[in-house]
Amino acid sequence: MTSASTLIEQVIDAWQNMQAKTPLVQCITNSVAANYTANVLLASGASPAMIDNPYEAESFTKISSALSINLGTPTSEQMQAMQISAKTAQLNGIPWVLDPVGYGPILAWRSQMTDELLQFKPSVIRGNASEISTLAGNQVQSKGVDSTLSSDQAYQQAYALLAHADCIAISGESDYILSKELDIIIQVNGGSPLQPKITATGCALGALIAAYSAVTTPTIAALSAHVHFAIAGKLAANQAQTMGSFSTIFMDYIHMLDDNLIEQYADIKLLEIQA
Amino acid sequence: MTSASTLIEQVIDAWQNMQAKTPLVQCITNSVAANYTANVLLASGASPAMIDNPYEAESFTKISSALSINLGTPTSEQMQAMQISAKTAQLNGIPWVLDPVGYGPILAWRSQMTDELLQFKPSVIRGNASEISTLAGNQVQSKGVDSTLSSDQAYQQAYALLAHADCIAISGESDYILSKELDIIIQVNGGSPLQPKITATGCALGALIAAYSAVTTPTIAALSAHVHFAIAGKLAANQAQTMGSFSTIFMDYIHMLDDNLIEQYADIKLLEIQA
Amino acid sequence: MTSASTLIEQVIDAWQNMQAKTPLVQCITNSVAANYTANVLLASGASPAMIDNPYEAESFTKISSALSINLGTPTSEQMQAMQISAKTAQLNGIPWVLDPVGYGPILAWRSQMTDELLQFKPSVIRGNASEISTLAGNQVQSKGVDSTLSSDQAYQQAYALLAHADCIAISGESDYILSKELDIIIQVNGGSPLQPKITATGCALGALIAAYSAVTTPTIAALSAHVHFAIAGKLAANQAQTMGSFSTIFMDYIHMLDDNLIEQYADIKLLEIQA
Repeated sequence: MTSASTLIEQVIDAWQNMQAKTPLVQCITNSVAANYTANVLLASGASPAMIDNPYEAESFTKISSALSINLGTPTSEQMQAMQISAKTAQLNGIPWVLDPVGYGPILAWRSQMTDELLQFKPSVIRGNASEISTLAGNQVQSKGVDSTLSSDQAYQQAYALLAHADCIAISGESDYILSKELDIIIQVNGGSPLQPKITATGCALGALIAAYSAVTTPTIAALSAHVHFAIAGKLAANQAQTMGSFSTIFMDYIHMLDDNLIEQYADIKLLEIQA
Repeated sequence: MTSASTLIEQVIDAWQNMQAKTPLVQCITNSVAANYTANVLLASGASPAMIDNPYEAESFTKISSALSINLGTPTSEQMQAMQISAKTAQLNGIPWVLDPVGYGPILAWRSQMTDELLQFKPSVIRGNASEISTLAGNQVQSKGVDSTLSSDQAYQQAYALLAHADCIAISGESDYILSKELDIIIQVNGGSPLQPKITATGCALGALIAAYSAVTTPTIAALSAHVHFAIAGKLAANQAQTMGSFSTIFMDYIHMLDDNLIEQYADIKLLEIQA
Repeated sequence: MTSASTLIEQVIDAWQNMQAKTPLVQCITNSVAANYTANVLLASGASPAMIDNPYEAESFTKISSALSINLGTPTSEQMQAMQISAKTAQLNGIPWVLDPVGYGPILAWRSQMTDELLQFKPSVIRGNASEISTLAGNQVQSKGVDSTLSSDQAYQQAYALLAHADCIAISGESDYILSKELDIIIQVNGGSPLQPKITATGCALGALIAAYSAVTTPTIAALSAHVHFAIAGKLAANQAQTMGSFSTIFMDYIHMLDDNLIEQYADIKLLEIQA
C-alpha cells in the first residue's frame, strides 16, 4: 500500500507536468459552468476548449489530451456530442471524466444518458454524494442538483461504480477518492463551506480532474484536482468570508498553487476499502 | 392599508425564512445570466437549478419550490420547457415569476411566447419600464433589451397587467411594485446607477423574486428581492465606482444582507393606485 | 500616409462617440463569452444584446448599430441566426465583425460557416494568429482554440483576407491591424501575458470592435478596441498578477478608460504593407 507522502509527491509531479504540457482539454459542460470552468483550467495551467456540438465532436476529441463531460444543462445537440466524444475518447485511449450532475429519477433524460455513457468507460466518475450514491444503485432523496447526503455516508456505497471507472471521486465536506488501481480510498480535507456557494465549483473540479488526467493516472488526477481545490478554498477562506471577494481570491489561489503550497497544505488520509 | 414599517418587517421575515428553508428554485434563463443568477441565489440563501430542457421540465418543476422564467436568449428547447414548466407550476400551486426580456414588436418570437405564458398566471411579472409598459398594451420605442422609459413613467401604465399576475415589479432608478393583494404601489429607492452596468442584474433580480416567493406572498417576495438589491447596490456604490470592483462588492453585500441591514437601509414609500 | 498621433486622436474621438451614443450591438456569441462580453461592452459605453435565434435575427439586426458574430460554441439555431444577421447587416449597411474562433480543418462545421459568411463582407475580421493565417489559406497546426503561431508571424500572411473585409485584426503579444482603407499595418503594443488567461477576452475584443464600428470607420474601430484592451491590460498588470484579482482590475480599467489614459498610454506603430 502506498503512503500519503508518496501520493503528495505524485500530486506535485502532476501539477508540474500540467504547467509544462498545457494539455488541451475538451469540455462539454453546462451554461452555468462554461465560463467559470474555462477560467479554472486556464488558471491551473491547462488549455480548455468548450467544443460541444455533434458535428465537430469526433475530430476534436481525437486531438484532445483529455475530455470532460458534464450533464448540468444538456441540450439535444450536446447529448449527441457527449456520445460521440465519449466513444471517440475510449477508442483512442484518451482519458475522460464523467460528471453526472443531478443523476436520479427526477431528471430521467440525463440519467439515461449517463447510464449509456458508462459503456465508454470513463477514467473517473465524479459527483456529490447524492449523485454518486444514486448512480451506484442506492435510493437517495435528492434536492435539485445539491446533495442531501454527506460525503462520508456515500463513499462506502460507491464501490460498485469501480466496475465502470478506474476511480470515483466524491466531493463534500471531506472529499473521498476510491481507486481501483491502488485499492484504497483517499480522504481529502481542506476547502471551505463557502466553496459550494460559488456556483459551478463542482463542475469546474470535474474538468480539472480531466486536465490532470492528461498528465498522470486517473487516481492521481482526481487526487491532484481535489487537493488543488482544497488548498485554494482553505487559503481563500482565511482572507474573505463573503461571496464576491471569496470568489476572486479563490481564483487567485487556484492560479497561485505551486509545489510549496501543495507540500505545506495538502491534507490527505488513506483509508482501506471495506467492500 | 398597510404601512411601510409593517412591510419592512415582512421583508425581514421573508429573508429569515429563505435562510432557514433554502428553497429549490428552477431557473429557465438566458446564456448571459445563467452563472450570475445562480451565484446571486446561492449568496441570498436559495438553492438554484437551471433545468431548462423540455424532457425534464415537468418532473423538476413538480419538486421545485418556485420557478423563474426569463426570455433573454431563448432556444427552441427552452421555449418548450417554459411552456411545460409554467403549466406545471400553475397546476401544482408553485409560485412562478415571468421576466419578459425584450418584449415588443421587434422581438416577436419571444413576445408571442410571453403572451402564451400569461395564461398560466405568473405570481409576479417583472421587467424594466419599456417591457412592462409594452406588455400592458402601450406603444413604446425600445432599444434592444434596455429601457427607453423611466420607471416612474411606466408604473401608472401597468395596472392592466394585474389581470394576469398578483404583482407587477418594475425596475429602474426607483423600483415600483404594484400589488393586487394589497391594492397599493410600493416605491423602492436605493441601488446605484452602476447596477445596470453589470449585465444580468435584472435577470438575477427576477430569479430572486422567485426564490422569495417560495417563502412568502408574491408582493412581499417582489418587495424583498428589490429591497435586497437596492441595499446591496447602495452600499457597494459607497465602496467602488468601477465595474470590476463594484461587481465583486455588490455580490459581497447580496451575501451579507441581514436583519439589521434591512432595518437600517430599506427605503420604501407607499403610493395609491390611481386606476 | 497617416501618423500615429493622428490615429490616436481618432481613437479618442471614437471613445467619446461611444460614450455619447451608447450604440446597440447585437452579439451572436458562445456560451463561455456571453456574460463577459456583455460586461465588457457595458463597461465600455455600449449597449449589448445577445439575440442569437434565427426567428428574431433579421428584425433585430435591422435596428442594431453593429453586429458581432463569434463562432466559439455554435448551435444549429445560432448558425442559422448568423447567416440571417450577416446578410441583413450587409443589406442595411450595418457594420459587422467576424470572429472565426477555431477556424481550421479540425473544426470543419464552423469553418464552412465562416467561409459562407465571408460573402456578406464583414467590416472587420479578427482572430488570433492561427485562425487568421489559416483563414488566409495557409496550413497551420492549431491547438484547440489557442494559437500556435505568434502574431508577428501571421500578419504578413493575412493580406489576402483584405479581399473579404475592410480590416483584419490579429491579437497576440503585439496586435496587428491591416487596413485596406489606409493601406497600412498598425502594430498595437501593451496588454499583459495574463490577458489570455482570462477566458473570452479575445471574444469580447471582437464584440468591442463591433461596438466601435458603430461610431467610426472599420480601421479606427479595430484600433480603438485593441488600444482599449492594451491599456487596460497593461495598467491592470501593474496592480495584480493572479487571475481572480487581475480579472477584476482589468474590468475596472476597461471601465475607467478615458481621453487622458488613451493619450498617455496608447502605444502604436505604423508599418507598411509589403504585399
